[in-house]
Amino acid sequence: MNPTETTEALVARICRAAKAAAAPMACAGTAAKNDALRAMAQGLRARSGELKTGNAADVEAGRSRGLAAAVLDRLLLTDERISQMADGIEEVVALPDPVGGIERMERRPNGLLVGRMRIPLGVIGIIYESRPNVTADAAALCVKSGNAVVLRGGSEAIASNTAIARILREALSTAGLPADAVSFIPRTDRSAIDAMLTQEENIDLVIPRGGEGLIRSVAGKSRIPVIKHYKGVCHAYVDEGADIAQSVAICVNAKAQRPGVCNAMETLLVHEAIAPSFLPPAAEALFRAGVEIRGCPETVRLVPKALPAKDSDWGTEFLDLILAVRVVPSMDAAIGHIRTYGSLHTEAILTRDHGRAMRFLREVDSSLVLVNASTRFNDGYQLGLGAEIGISTTKIHAFGPMGLSELTTTKFVAFGDGQVRR
Amino acid sequence: MNPTETTEALVARICRAAKAAAAPMACAGTAAKNDALRAMAQGLRARSGELKTGNAADVEAGRSRGLAAAVLDRLLLTDERISQMADGIEEVVALPDPVGGIERMERRPNGLLVGRMRIPLGVIGIIYESRPNVTADAAALCVKSGNAVVLRGGSEAIASNTAIARILREALSTAGLPADAVSFIPRTDRSAIDAMLTQEENIDLVIPRGGEGLIRSVAGKSRIPVIKHYKGVCHAYVDEGADIAQSVAICVNAKAQRPGVCNAMETLLVHEAIAPSFLPPAAEALFRAGVEIRGCPETVRLVPKALPAKDSDWGTEFLDLILAVRVVPSMDAAIGHIRTYGSLHTEAILTRDHGRAMRFLREVDSSLVLVNASTRFNDGYQLGLGAEIGISTTKIHAFGPMGLSELTTTKFVAFGDGQVRR
Repeated sequence: MNPTETTEALVARICRAAKAAAAPMACAGTAAKNDALRAMAQGLRARSGELKTGNAADVEAGRSRGLAAAVLDRLLLTDERISQMADGIEEVVALPDPVGGIERMERRPNGLLVGRMRIPLGVIGIIYESRPNVTADAAALCVKSGNAVVLRGGSEAIASNTAIARILREALSTAGLPADAVSFIPRTDRSAIDAMLTQEENIDLVIPRGGEGLIRSVAGKSRIPVIKHYKGVCHAYVDEGADIAQSVAICVNAKAQRPGVCNAMETLLVHEAIAPSFLPPAAEALFRAGVEIRGCPETVRLVPKALPAKDSDWGTEFLDLILAVRVVPSMDAAIGHIRTYGSLHTEAILTRDHGRAMRFLREVDSSLVLVNASTRFNDGYQLGLGAEIGISTTKIHAFGPMGLSELTTTKFVAFGDGQVRR
Repeated sequence: MNPTETTEALVARICRAAKAAAAPMACAGTAAKNDALRAMAQGLRARSGELKTGNAADVEAGRSRGLAAAVLDRLLLTDERISQMADGIEEVVALPDPVGGIERMERRPNGLLVGRMRIPLGVIGIIYESRPNVTADAAALCVKSGNAVVLRGGSEAIASNTAIARILREALSTAGLPADAVSFIPRTDRSAIDAMLTQEENIDLVIPRGGEGLIRSVAGKSRIPVIKHYKGVCHAYVDEGADIAQSVAICVNAKAQRPGVCNAMETLLVHEAIAPSFLPPAAEALFRAGVEIRGCPETVRLVPKALPAKDSDWGTEFLDLILAVRVVPSMDAAIGHIRTYGSLHTEAILTRDHGRAMRFLREVDSSLVLVNASTRFNDGYQLGLGAEIGISTTKIHAFGPMGLSELTTTKFVAFGDGQVRR
């Protein structure tokens, strides 16, 4: 590295190198990619001392900058966490290679055989914040799907990320793959992000991982397509005639099992016909789990311990043990509420009625719509993708959890024996 | 319309109306959508007089503005062309409805049934230039795929487009669907495009159809994802040992059957071992078809009537009866040339060798890669999609011809019976 190189020149050079690595990565066989992944996991385990030294510098710097305890905790690498990072990479080894298969091969009337071959996207840019494990997780998924990746992590974890990236790059070389397939931008000023977002010749897709501010800022500036994962304002709707005990259990799980994540329920909608029998036991179970309820007037009437909801509570991602509750006159009103305040993330209907279940599935256009199950299932592992690089809440390219397959696309292939166009 | 409304306010109002129409369109059944399409076709046929009146005004205005004869011809609506537009819509009626099916339904270990339901994207923005038939073609594909569309055509065809859009909107109402599912921006100043490209809350995807200048300008300004269809610099590579007669026929077809389109061959690459036996007869057939050859020194040596190629000829989209020809020492050199000068559109290998055919298919990452067939097959109809709204040459969301399915995405759906996350 040349310390006098401008950030812009450095970023451009790194992105060009990643682009050059994309072609050999796209052609790499499954065995070579798996060898590289195994070498990555082994490298992280074998060199945990080196990782902890880098990490200690980050933690020390963070402490002297006065970072909150929660941020310092996310930053910390222990032997156990390093081992989990390595385990995560080994799980990716076990996943099927999405690249190279041909789907939907059909014979056209002129005899041409036409199919779609699954191929990598090329170069993925990942822009993330403080957690160093993203460096390893994202790199593993990109390598397995035949892509090159350009990583730009937050300043809090710069020494940790630098150490992780060094180990991953050496592992690629060991396996005969280009080290630049995992490229890391070692500068943490904002201008490094800005420079990355103008590299449309070298980067094919940008995935920001972090808070809404980061995502909006990246999406607003980028000349490269961005997969957005905005907030999760998830709803459950308890229908007239729902199974009360089952619905209470699902609601408690959706709200309280892990309230700080994007697939936790934030608003509960209850049909007015079931509210008198459902809300009191549901509220009791939620209170026992430590949940604060902010309800509409009808909710407060039925559950006197509930606080009155403000208008701003509808559509708020609390990420906390707080739940907004509204009694609605019909399923249509529930769907209307979701359209107005939802974030296209995850919505569930709790019902015994088959027709209304199917209508809710059709009419609610969130990335996951469930019948009689917890919103907490919107997750790549839970839905069977094997892994996840993020959850897209916009509909272009991918919608919902993104696994290996969502880091690829298809090209058309055609086998002929002399066909020409008439 | 309020003539004093600013362009920005008008565009925002139209896009909001399209967004409001997207929800009922997404839930519309196949029968209602097909009824609307049939009414559209019928309306265009029945009201051809009204269309021709509007069109005559456009042609007259174009003539007095001094538009080129070719542009005026593209603009002209005759009874035959109106009938073809209606036929095109009726062909869309016959295509299967992509919406609502559930793919890859799998049972998770906890009993949750997880699948992906195909759903419309929402609101598609189409920005196009002079040909009025795009108004009808694009609207038909968007309606069939359950989307709403916002159309913004060029100034040359404003009266024609206004008349077509009026008929299409009335047909939607007749079929009980919202007229705003086909929304048309009746202003032709550039600021109407700029205003559209900031409507990220109301438009989900923008597809520019036209020259490279339009596409680059739209992609550069848009805050909404853009599907880009850049130029087609298509290559054929004639491998050592190829079938000479078959390869000559394919090359003539790829270059000369319709030279002005994006899937015509622009550069021919020939393995040096076959060049002496292939190039003289190929050149003769190409000359007979009126093609000018611009060759590398070895080509000119073998084909004395060829002109010497300039550096700028490699990578040029001639869209004319001009072909650049280069003799290469190996298939790797051919693939290297394609990587340097190609546009990811269409590439063909002409070969008898199975291994090299398969390697070319894997290593060339264009939207269509063919073996022993003409590049002219990169077209939605020819590849079996039934229709096409454009050809994407970028890999995000869609790559290659985009049919009805590429105007949709999938959401996850899950059927449970009380599942909660542990």
